[in-house]
Amino acid sequence: MNIVTVNTPGGSYPIHIAAGRLDALAHSIPGNATAIVVVSNTTISSLYGERVRQALASTAKPLVFIDLPDGEAYKTWDTLNLIFDRLLGHQLDRKAVLVALGGGVVGDICGFAAACYMRGVRFVQVPTTLLAQVDSSVGGKTAINHPLGKNMIGAFYQPLAVEIDTDVLASLPAREISAGLAEVIKYGMIADATFFAWCEENVDALRALAPQAIHHAIKRSCEIKAQVVSQDERESGVRAILNFGHTFGHAIESGLGYGQWLHGEAVGCGMVLAAELSAQVHGLDRTIVARVRALVKAIGCPTQAPDLGAQRWLDLMRVDKKTEGRVFRFVLLPELGRAQVDVVPDAQLETILARISVGQGV
Amino acid sequence: MNIVTVNTPGGSYPIHIAAGRLDALAHSIPGNATAIVVVSNTTISSLYGERVRQALASTAKPLVFIDLPDGEAYKTWDTLNLIFDRLLGHQLDRKAVLVALGGGVVGDICGFAAACYMRGVRFVQVPTTLLAQVDSSVGGKTAINHPLGKNMIGAFYQPLAVEIDTDVLASLPAREISAGLAEVIKYGMIADATFFAWCEENVDALRALAPQAIHHAIKRSCEIKAQVVSQDERESGVRAILNFGHTFGHAIESGLGYGQWLHGEAVGCGMVLAAELSAQVHGLDRTIVARVRALVKAIGCPTQAPDLGAQRWLDLMRVDKKTEGRVFRFVLLPELGRAQVDVVPDAQLETILARISVGQGV
Repeated sequence: MNIVTVNTPGGSYPIHIAAGRLDALAHSIPGNATAIVVVSNTTISSLYGERVRQALASTAKPLVFIDLPDGEAYKTWDTLNLIFDRLLGHQLDRKAVLVALGGGVVGDICGFAAACYMRGVRFVQVPTTLLAQVDSSVGGKTAINHPLGKNMIGAFYQPLAVEIDTDVLASLPAREISAGLAEVIKYGMIADATFFAWCEENVDALRALAPQAIHHAIKRSCEIKAQVVSQDERESGVRAILNFGHTFGHAIESGLGYGQWLHGEAVGCGMVLAAELSAQVHGLDRTIVARVRALVKAIGCPTQAPDLGAQRWLDLMRVDKKTEGRVFRFVLLPELGRAQVDVVPDAQLETILARISVGQGV
Repeated sequence: MNIVTVNTPGGSYPIHIAAGRLDALAHSIPGNATAIVVVSNTTISSLYGERVRQALASTAKPLVFIDLPDGEAYKTWDTLNLIFDRLLGHQLDRKAVLVALGGGVVGDICGFAAACYMRGVRFVQVPTTLLAQVDSSVGGKTAINHPLGKNMIGAFYQPLAVEIDTDVLASLPAREISAGLAEVIKYGMIADATFFAWCEENVDALRALAPQAIHHAIKRSCEIKAQVVSQDERESGVRAILNFGHTFGHAIESGLGYGQWLHGEAVGCGMVLAAELSAQVHGLDRTIVARVRALVKAIGCPTQAPDLGAQRWLDLMRVDKKTEGRVFRFVLLPELGRAQVDVVPDAQLETILARISVGQGV
């Protein structure tokens, strides 16, 4: 087993990475927990619900299972309120511990429920998608969507632990593996050119979920994320670099309707756009842009941006949380393995958006 | 002007107490704020909206006013979402600053909106009721109600500052002054027997809003609250003593339907019940119980508990946030001026509840 530690003002906690980790979940439940509430979705629950129930039986604590509907479209207040209804219906107290068993949607909603229920109860992240394992379960970002924007309502709220079972990836569709790998290669682009090159060399092994390769990719991703988050829990500075590709990506998700593209797919494509913008703004070498595009394609993500219309792109990106005083800010790469946040003049953006709208795909 | 400082891990901030403080609000807005959003209700806004607009004009920042419907019945998700709709509709960013202009309901909703919008924006508390000035605006508790319990969904989230204008109390109905004084005398009961005696001596001046008396009462209340909150921001220990009378009080509010009794009225009556329970459990002197009852009556709050039926009382109190593993916990007084949290056996509670149900009023 590998352990990566996250240190933030909001709490220090371990990320445990191992095959079969699901069966050891009881270790992450504090002795003074008065109840355990496993929040999952209908899909994951049918796959792993019983196994998790058995793994937690040794705690001898009251167990409640809450199955949410599956999908980004359900990352809403109504779904969040299903959890509150159940917690209050069971009269659960402040010492109850929530367990988020699922992908990013379950983790984000369950984490936000934990942040808000009685002004905060403890929770454990048990991510079951590659994307959640390398990204959304680590760092304490929780949220729900609002009709006017993704992740607009939420909290920074750290879990007690993140429990990553690499075995569960075997049940994922190939498309979700590709979407998760988008966040993996992102870490190389923004913080570790050597890791990026390793991903290029091991892309087939990663897509095939070869145990050694996937374990290394998850561990290195969590290490980089933990390092960044430890410096800046609340995204007042360096943490924003983790959003490389996300301003474009969120616009794609929102513009096409949540759920059309997977989050990782939108981010994959968004990273190609952000690399292009980096070439325009910072003179990032065109060979690097080509490598970014090639690796996004090699992991199985789209590289051709949808034509939403230039004005719609601008409107969608303006509600991005990095925006300040209506000025556009993007995470860009001055070089491979190093990222920073830059104000980007409208004219620079329009060049890229115009190329999308004439079908050059950037 | 008096300044009381609150120090918590979530932030240190001043409470400014002065007549006419509304006109100085611009001082509490940080220079890098991109917009100011004044969240109020229809009643307060018609009284002070224009004055606040003028006070903030000197900042030359975009100003948005959001008027919520007035009343505890509106402390709901739907009302909270009105704020999110407006913030997103105006495309306001993370550097926007919210101003809560109103009583406890406005402060709690606006504070929770600030805690959640884009995972946290800054806000200023401008409490306009006595109860909000001495209690709810200080210490960072924010929340909305859920059909199954009061303040069940919320966050600990500290403001940038609390701006208390003692002049605005003149526009309050006498009933709201009485409700606010319930929280004032609470501080004496739990932390300062001398202040309790001072309240007994000055009760007429307090009800008449005599400037010196009311200023002292607010200052001393804020000092005690700040001291307790500074020791325990997230209510894992000593902070719970601030809930003296509140377990009974919340049951009254919830049992009669929110809005029938004012929060302070329910707490006033709840403190009489809690003093009775303190006599039973700790042998608190009966003369102290009589003084508590007499002062609650003297400030103009009810001392006769409503007969909800013993089982309904128990059900309502079981969802209290201090409850752990279904055991009842109450804040009790071993002596006047000192409070602690105790587990109370069901039998002890039933004695008191039985007396309510046969109309002895405790």
